[in-house]
Amino acid sequence: MKQYFKVNEWKIIEEGFDPSYNKVTESVFSLGNGRMGQRANFEEAYSGETLQGNYVAGVYYPDKTRVGWWKNGYPEYFAKVLNAANWIGIDVWIGDEQLDLAKWEVIDFKRELNMKEGYLHRNTLVKSPQGKMVRIESTRFCSIVDDEMGAIAYTVTCTNYSGGIRLIPYIDGDIINADSNYGEKFWGEVSKEISNDTGVIQLRTKKTGFEVATAMKIRLSQGGKPVDFISEQIQKEKYIGAEITVNAVSGQPVTLKKYVVNLSSQNHKTDELSTKALAEVERISEKDFALLLNEQRLAWAEKWKHNDIIIEGDAVAQQGIRFNIFQLNQTYTGEDDRLNIGPKGFTGEKYGGSTYWDTEAYCVPFYLATADQKVARNLLLYRYKQLGKAIDNAKLLGFKDGAALYPMVTMDGTECHNEWEITFEEIHRNGAIAFAIFNYVRYTGDEAYLTDYGLEVLIAISRFWAQRITWSAERQQYVMLGVTGPNEYENNVNNNWYTSTIAVWCLKYTIEAIGKVKQANQHKYNDLITKISFREEYECEKFADIIGKMYLGYDAQLGIFLQQDGFLDKEQILVKDLPKSELPLVKKWSWDRILRSVYIKQADVLQGLYFFEDDYNLETIRRNYDFYEPRTVHESSLSPCVHAILAAKLGDIDRAYQFYLRTSRLDIDDYNDDTDDGCHITSMAGTWMAVVEGFGGMRVRDGKLSFNPLLPAEWKALSFKVGFRGISLNVRISKDGAAITNYSDKSITVKVYNEEYAIDANSEKQIKIK
Amino acid sequence: MKQYFKVNEWKIIEEGFDPSYNKVTESVFSLGNGRMGQRANFEEAYSGETLQGNYVAGVYYPDKTRVGWWKNGYPEYFAKVLNAANWIGIDVWIGDEQLDLAKWEVIDFKRELNMKEGYLHRNTLVKSPQGKMVRIESTRFCSIVDDEMGAIAYTVTCTNYSGGIRLIPYIDGDIINADSNYGEKFWGEVSKEISNDTGVIQLRTKKTGFEVATAMKIRLSQGGKPVDFISEQIQKEKYIGAEITVNAVSGQPVTLKKYVVNLSSQNHKTDELSTKALAEVERISEKDFALLLNEQRLAWAEKWKHNDIIIEGDAVAQQGIRFNIFQLNQTYTGEDDRLNIGPKGFTGEKYGGSTYWDTEAYCVPFYLATADQKVARNLLLYRYKQLGKAIDNAKLLGFKDGAALYPMVTMDGTECHNEWEITFEEIHRNGAIAFAIFNYVRYTGDEAYLTDYGLEVLIAISRFWAQRITWSAERQQYVMLGVTGPNEYENNVNNNWYTSTIAVWCLKYTIEAIGKVKQANQHKYNDLITKISFREEYECEKFADIIGKMYLGYDAQLGIFLQQDGFLDKEQILVKDLPKSELPLVKKWSWDRILRSVYIKQADVLQGLYFFEDDYNLETIRRNYDFYEPRTVHESSLSPCVHAILAAKLGDIDRAYQFYLRTSRLDIDDYNDDTDDGCHITSMAGTWMAVVEGFGGMRVRDGKLSFNPLLPAEWKALSFKVGFRGISLNVRISKDGAAITNYSDKSITVKVYNEEYAIDANSEKQIKIK
Repeated sequence: MKQYFKVNEWKIIEEGFDPSYNKVTESVFSLGNGRMGQRANFEEAYSGETLQGNYVAGVYYPDKTRVGWWKNGYPEYFAKVLNAANWIGIDVWIGDEQLDLAKWEVIDFKRELNMKEGYLHRNTLVKSPQGKMVRIESTRFCSIVDDEMGAIAYTVTCTNYSGGIRLIPYIDGDIINADSNYGEKFWGEVSKEISNDTGVIQLRTKKTGFEVATAMKIRLSQGGKPVDFISEQIQKEKYIGAEITVNAVSGQPVTLKKYVVNLSSQNHKTDELSTKALAEVERISEKDFALLLNEQRLAWAEKWKHNDIIIEGDAVAQQGIRFNIFQLNQTYTGEDDRLNIGPKGFTGEKYGGSTYWDTEAYCVPFYLATADQKVARNLLLYRYKQLGKAIDNAKLLGFKDGAALYPMVTMDGTECHNEWEITFEEIHRNGAIAFAIFNYVRYTGDEAYLTDYGLEVLIAISRFWAQRITWSAERQQYVMLGVTGPNEYENNVNNNWYTSTIAVWCLKYTIEAIGKVKQANQHKYNDLITKISFREEYECEKFADIIGKMYLGYDAQLGIFLQQDGFLDKEQILVKDLPKSELPLVKKWSWDRILRSVYIKQADVLQGLYFFEDDYNLETIRRNYDFYEPRTVHESSLSPCVHAILAAKLGDIDRAYQFYLRTSRLDIDDYNDDTDDGCHITSMAGTWMAVVEGFGGMRVRDGKLSFNPLLPAEWKALSFKVGFRGISLNVRISKDGAAITNYSDKSITVKVYNEEYAIDANSEKQIKIK
Repeated sequence: MKQYFKVNEWKIIEEGFDPSYNKVTESVFSLGNGRMGQRANFEEAYSGETLQGNYVAGVYYPDKTRVGWWKNGYPEYFAKVLNAANWIGIDVWIGDEQLDLAKWEVIDFKRELNMKEGYLHRNTLVKSPQGKMVRIESTRFCSIVDDEMGAIAYTVTCTNYSGGIRLIPYIDGDIINADSNYGEKFWGEVSKEISNDTGVIQLRTKKTGFEVATAMKIRLSQGGKPVDFISEQIQKEKYIGAEITVNAVSGQPVTLKKYVVNLSSQNHKTDELSTKALAEVERISEKDFALLLNEQRLAWAEKWKHNDIIIEGDAVAQQGIRFNIFQLNQTYTGEDDRLNIGPKGFTGEKYGGSTYWDTEAYCVPFYLATADQKVARNLLLYRYKQLGKAIDNAKLLGFKDGAALYPMVTMDGTECHNEWEITFEEIHRNGAIAFAIFNYVRYTGDEAYLTDYGLEVLIAISRFWAQRITWSAERQQYVMLGVTGPNEYENNVNNNWYTSTIAVWCLKYTIEAIGKVKQANQHKYNDLITKISFREEYECEKFADIIGKMYLGYDAQLGIFLQQDGFLDKEQILVKDLPKSELPLVKKWSWDRILRSVYIKQADVLQGLYFFEDDYNLETIRRNYDFYEPRTVHESSLSPCVHAILAAKLGDIDRAYQFYLRTSRLDIDDYNDDTDDGCHITSMAGTWMAVVEGFGGMRVRDGKLSFNPLLPAEWKALSFKVGFRGISLNVRISKDGAAITNYSDKSITVKVYNEEYAIDANSEKQIKIK
């Protein structure tokens, strides 16, 4: 854990430049708007350590798999988010010296990510090897008003030099994908043109054939006044640039404004891309940078109005949660049901793919409560549309009769991942996908979803479990062999409690859903079972038999569920008794040592108790928490949030607070020493859960919202907003109690500390804390 | 299983050419002499499916590891046997048509590997696209008289064409390694020269800097008479050739003789390589091909005198065992203690590395009984010399205080393999290395080896086990978590019976060896324990504690040892009840399905019962055999031989015979559909074991040889030769009994069917069969 950035409630601030930390900063300061985004690379050349990254949502490439030893069933390709054309580039020459912060002396340096208004700002004074002093100020943003557009205002002020300077704004599509398996380049050029102040380049991805046109328009001012210029146009392979020579006067700022539009063939006709991009960039440049930035400010203000969480009296915590909400809003807007939420969003290319079980387990709750119902529904439909591929995927592994195994990692429904212990065995993902259906219906009350889409997915998933679970003659019970749970620090174990528990739950919920759908619409139900050849009696009997006879590990002496067979055979040395120098284990220990140790990446028994908390009494949850938490190293970004929620539930507010800080500041403080290649976007939704479900104690039970507020000692007050079935609420929790404001024209009944309160339309209810 | 080759007691014969089978034939017909070797590629160009392979022993390259997802502790490089310069190449043009069996019509075709005399012969009649009929006859060998030399006699006879033909003998170092991880080429050129009939090229491996000079000398005859020629010399990158134009006369044979010498910097000064190679090739070419081939015949006759196994009345079985002995003799001669026995020998590049546990578990017994004692000793010393690296390897995985983990795959002592479930977990290899020490001392009586080398290795290995085994508070016993046994169809299991059993045995044998060494030479013992900081009392107490309290799985109801925890939870469907279409599992099933199934690649419980048979009564062995054998798919080449030995021991002669056929004809019949990339050299030693230890029932107990002969119904008689402590015996088993001939000048006492017989010097003893 580092404390590199300055604490500020609305900004992330870097003061002074530490090149060794540059890749982390590039990740943390990433910008995005759900459609495109990029890492916080410098506009000018930088020869130091950097990870260049520009991304366009939904544009990917199936990179040929790299694997040491091939296993039957591995996918041939890993579909990856691509590094796309670099549109921010502006090369800068002062006289005959090229600006490069890796080679020039940095006198002072300040960079900040303004989360309130949605832009990145940098102000630095540098000295060239020959002694020229230059101040650089740059502001840039990815517009959330027009999600195909970005802009930069880049100001150069020489303070002890007058003479020629050259600015070369460019678009470069000849970029490298750091994550390419065989060092291939994935883009080919379609066309390009460049005039004095305007250019466009259209590129096509190999194999997948996505095309993206990136257009730029350049404006120049000197001493604050617009000036004309004559540029020298540069064309190279997959590159266009315009070299502008300016006679700089010492002390007089030279500002280059670069307007950019990025259009993808996913949303526009391929043959119109370049023409449209040029027209668009023309249109936005007419507005001028200041006006566009003001629109951006207003749009972000509107976002925050619905999304913000306010923590009073604790700026560190406040900064943390705002950073998480900011990045979530930058990553996914829910407007396009072909998109999903990549684990790195627009902050890096690691992990490729776009969709993990993170979406269902961590992101769906966030979007359910903070966005229109259709956003969560789109996330569910994304999986519904890929059901056929999930059935194909299961077939590849020997399953049949319509059993579905959703991929561990995917872009378009095809499995991408290639580690047998994960690809083939981390099958609990199927459970999370079923749980998200349940969660969506529970939250929204939209039971028609089950009839129209949900049940078909549930049956396919339950068919998978019914085949994957086998009968042990030895135990006279059903068992689940050879799985990897969410705790990936165990591989290929038998009877992982979490996976078995969620599998049994899936079977139960499927039977329940069948009942509901039959009752709601027998006709549609009949159509469905015909379509998928569902033999209701026979298959449900099998489901029920498994439900009744499933082995779920339990140690009676300790009163805990057993993470897996043999877990108690391990040496029971707690994390607190490990030397700090051994952490993080994933970097310090060999894999086998991690596997045979008791240490847990994320505690999956606790994940199960979180999902199914109503099935267990508080004492059971406490015993398991007390057992598993001290063995958990939280080396998954998805771990601390669930621990925070359970700690809060168990009244352990101090631990809940510590876990909250860890999840909310995971990237800002580079907790796990791995933010350099991107931020942990999906776990940010977990941070939101830690606040709302943890400290707010929010749940939906029997169609009603309930709260169980608990405030960390460090906080004066906590406020958050949720939407529920058409009603908008603000919940403010202080030492004195909870104040719930209903902004809607309908009244709502909520439970607080298990008592019901009616809150009238457009009014507030004060509830004393217990 | 295929029956592609003709059965012959001394030859492998291919009649007719099946291009789809060509890579298998190339493997089976490989030639070698322990120093160099090659696959049976055609001399002339061949545009069909082929795997080019020429190899020079001990010359390797550390190829950058390719891995999907890096795990801490993986090696960065995989040291690979290299495909070296192609020295057999002779391009042939008949008029303007290039000879290419993939494009020409093959009228008749016969190829044979003469195992008795050690050469490869081909005779084929082909028709060109333009209709020219040409007979090609070629004979080649890798000399076992001079292991740096090979020669080819290549005869072209046009039968309906007179006119120009061109022969281009060449040496090409610009070859491809099919197994290269990133498509790199591993050889660079040092120098080359080519004159009218003589050329040499010297190449250097990248990184490792091995150099190999390959020289050729060409002779030509026409109509059986030597003729002079003037060639056109060709030089390309890493290539030399001599183009010879001959005026061919229809019906008159044109013969090109190509003499080749291959010298490596391992055995010669680098700056003398090319000069020496030229001198050598000059010298051998003066002897002429026929003379050299005759020397080869005589040398092989001498080999067979000591090595041959004669099976009377069953040519299929006879061909099988001779093929195995032939290939073993081609692969490793024991003269160079830097070399070891690669799993593919000189028949392919797959698996890289040169040393697996195969050497200790399967090859040492063969060399103990068929070669000078120093050969097995050299194999042991190879590991002794790498002890330091084995200790480093263990350190990398978190072990300390002199614990050693020998690599799974190695060239020079460094681990090469990179699958966590094997590299880090298939640790039973340590046990096999200890067992080989025991086996060597048991067979030879050379107890001084323990004092000088063996004990140091044993203590380092026992230290590893003492750290790797952990205490289970739950069981109040020691356990071994997270291992992969020889049955690689289970990964990361707990308490694999075989691994735990051999670990406990190691600890016991180490304590025993400490006692012996102390008694034999207290002084040297003191030196050793000082050198390795061995705290005898403390460490031996720990060893003894583990020996006394180790958990070894046993099912009382079935009376069997448990392969691992949870084995009986699996669905117990036997191999015989599997549809044939599902086999081999490794090609038909996804990895997870194999892992959670009951099916066994090679039965490691049975491997343990084979190693430690004296510790178990026959009924125990039978119960385990009866349980595990029907669950074993034998998809490891190392599996059938041990089953054959146990079946013979249990009196199940029919099964023993079936297993024998499978192991002995594994490659000839391409049983597992994987001979195309090379033969299974190390399992060939297992075949020898199946005969001598299985049907011969040979054991060494209390310093004496014992036999328990049993003859398959299909055989009239079986004869084999063994050497034992300076005495040479021939054992002939027939329906009537055993005849043991002592060829030595000393008498020997052996046990047959548990009765002792003294066999005088140079005499034979007849023993009636029981």
